[in-house]
Amino acid sequence: MRDVVILGVGMTKFGVSNLSQKEMFAEAALEALHESQVKAKDLQALFVGNVLGDFEEGQINIAPFLAAEIGMKAEAPATRFESACASATVAVRHAVLMVRSGEYDIVMAGGTERTAIMGTPLATKTFAMGSHSEYERFSGITFPGVFGMVAHQYAAKYRIPLDSLTHAMAKVAVKNHRNGVLNPLAHFRKEITIDTVLGSPMIADPLQLFDCCPFSDGAAAVVIADAEKFKERVPKPILVAGTGQGSAGPVYRQKDLTRMAAREASAKHAYEEAGVGPSDIDVIELHDCFTIAEVVALEMLGIFDFGAAPEAIERGDTALDGKIPVNPSGGLKAKGHPIGATGAAQTYEIVKQLRGECGDRQVKDAEIGLVDTLGGDFGTVCNLVLRRY
Amino acid sequence: MRDVVILGVGMTKFGVSNLSQKEMFAEAALEALHESQVKAKDLQALFVGNVLGDFEEGQINIAPFLAAEIGMKAEAPATRFESACASATVAVRHAVLMVRSGEYDIVMAGGTERTAIMGTPLATKTFAMGSHSEYERFSGITFPGVFGMVAHQYAAKYRIPLDSLTHAMAKVAVKNHRNGVLNPLAHFRKEITIDTVLGSPMIADPLQLFDCCPFSDGAAAVVIADAEKFKERVPKPILVAGTGQGSAGPVYRQKDLTRMAAREASAKHAYEEAGVGPSDIDVIELHDCFTIAEVVALEMLGIFDFGAAPEAIERGDTALDGKIPVNPSGGLKAKGHPIGATGAAQTYEIVKQLRGECGDRQVKDAEIGLVDTLGGDFGTVCNLVLRRY
Repeated sequence: MRDVVILGVGMTKFGVSNLSQKEMFAEAALEALHESQVKAKDLQALFVGNVLGDFEEGQINIAPFLAAEIGMKAEAPATRFESACASATVAVRHAVLMVRSGEYDIVMAGGTERTAIMGTPLATKTFAMGSHSEYERFSGITFPGVFGMVAHQYAAKYRIPLDSLTHAMAKVAVKNHRNGVLNPLAHFRKEITIDTVLGSPMIADPLQLFDCCPFSDGAAAVVIADAEKFKERVPKPILVAGTGQGSAGPVYRQKDLTRMAAREASAKHAYEEAGVGPSDIDVIELHDCFTIAEVVALEMLGIFDFGAAPEAIERGDTALDGKIPVNPSGGLKAKGHPIGATGAAQTYEIVKQLRGECGDRQVKDAEIGLVDTLGGDFGTVCNLVLRRY
Repeated sequence: MRDVVILGVGMTKFGVSNLSQKEMFAEAALEALHESQVKAKDLQALFVGNVLGDFEEGQINIAPFLAAEIGMKAEAPATRFESACASATVAVRHAVLMVRSGEYDIVMAGGTERTAIMGTPLATKTFAMGSHSEYERFSGITFPGVFGMVAHQYAAKYRIPLDSLTHAMAKVAVKNHRNGVLNPLAHFRKEITIDTVLGSPMIADPLQLFDCCPFSDGAAAVVIADAEKFKERVPKPILVAGTGQGSAGPVYRQKDLTRMAAREASAKHAYEEAGVGPSDIDVIELHDCFTIAEVVALEMLGIFDFGAAPEAIERGDTALDGKIPVNPSGGLKAKGHPIGATGAAQTYEIVKQLRGECGDRQVKDAEIGLVDTLGGDFGTVCNLVLRRY
């Protein structure tokens, strides 16, 4: 099996954009190509995440149009992946596997999405299509609703007072906003306090407004290549050491929303391929669509013991200068969440961190990083372990 | 590189269904599993095509729900592919490449779609999202419009009177309807005549109603496995000898709608991997979304010389008992076109033909078969070469 490296990365500013999905993708893609010292016509395939381009811009089968937009050859397969919010991570994973197998030597993966243009009410409704259409959505469960249930289950299971849990959750929001201030590409760049979170409107008990990530526009792209053939192109190639993907499926299938076999299996697969364990990870970008999602992710990824994440968060272990910095980019919470691009943006951040190019938000001596993305209300889970090469 | 075989296939009746996309898929998948002597829990991954599940049933990220529906393990990645009408062929191709590389030993690929439920007006509008949203659709071009232009370009380029061309196109419709009568799973099972076609309402000059395929509901699935480990399970495994995929991209990029570099490259790639040429093919399922599409496909696939397809069609070369039978299933025209399932259904037909199980529509001594699928107005092209193993 060949070593697969990320040569270069690109990303737009996240937020509210006047650019189309294709224009945003081109911006990110051309930056990634430039970093990689590669031309679009040399790319052998494109793997791209996009979730709701049909509702957003009346566009399906966006991949070949993105390929044309950046000047790729017509002979190069261009494929859209849709795994709800995990779409781009799944696209990156498939790109990595295809290069690892020798099918291709150099490809691009990424994602683009324009959710902010829809406005929050329509975005909420269309996002909800990521839950099971027959068994879940019509019962009235929304994504905030499901993650509200996760919080209640968590508090009950570990006999933690709900107030203590929501305080730790608020700390997640405060930390991620603080990191976002340091990220010039983040959607939100303002500090908030515990009081901001706990004083904000209730969305789905116990989740309040500041427990929830925003809807954003944005795109990100990475160039993925066979290490032997391409590593000399750039000073700091980053190895994709392991990948994992699982399918938790519908909520009705889950015995315990705070622990999911699919997610634990996906992370384990990525760790094992990389030959590392959770304690080897120096920096993590994980799926904090809601603050409670960061809490349970940290446990399912093996970073903290089950039931121990809230205390660790309160101690500051996940802060930029903590034991294991989590979401230095600001996470979905502050960097923003253009659903189909999120996984590629998480990958962008980890690559930049491992290259030591993150300025004020740089995690010291980061050598091994983890990407973790959820699709829907757990439907899909996907992980990548990256390391310096 | 390992040999990859299709162990078993399954397919619902195409037409108008009361079943959900998940239920239809389960029907097809369980048939494919039964044929393959494999259990759902043994499948290591699912690759599934679905195009408009969000408009049809309010469902995105359908793959993990389909995996759960048939009883797959949560550890198994389940991924949705959307390449417009080529979605399922692209899903099958990725499944094949993943097994060939050794990433998996046994997986399922397929597709499911419920377009008929939308009704023709909404289906036409939502389908049109497969064209370029900025440069094409807003100019008023629909899919029938684009393929109408193909017909005019073809007639002008080869100096064929338009009446002669539309007569040959009508013969395509008559042949595919005749084949559909012999296929118990086809959407339309009635013979039509040249007069039926030429007397039907004009849709997009020169395409008339009977030049156009219907909107259908349906699902199809195939089990794909490493030959060495699994070939003994079934009496007649079918080898996936070659695959190809290209990205023609938007119409504005095409110099000549009757010839496309992407499609010719995709077919060439599939032929070369399989070590065969167009003259070795015994049976073809190709993308006859409109009758003119069958004409130009036959030439871009190398079956007939450029400009020679209409004559060959008039001679009966593509009939069930002709030199090279095309769309024995009835094609999209008569078997029906549940967009996200179409490529898997084409694969189903070729597998059944190569196993000699097609009864009255059996192509004599078929040993090598070709699948050809278009996504959108050429955006994506995908090919598979199958042969007896």
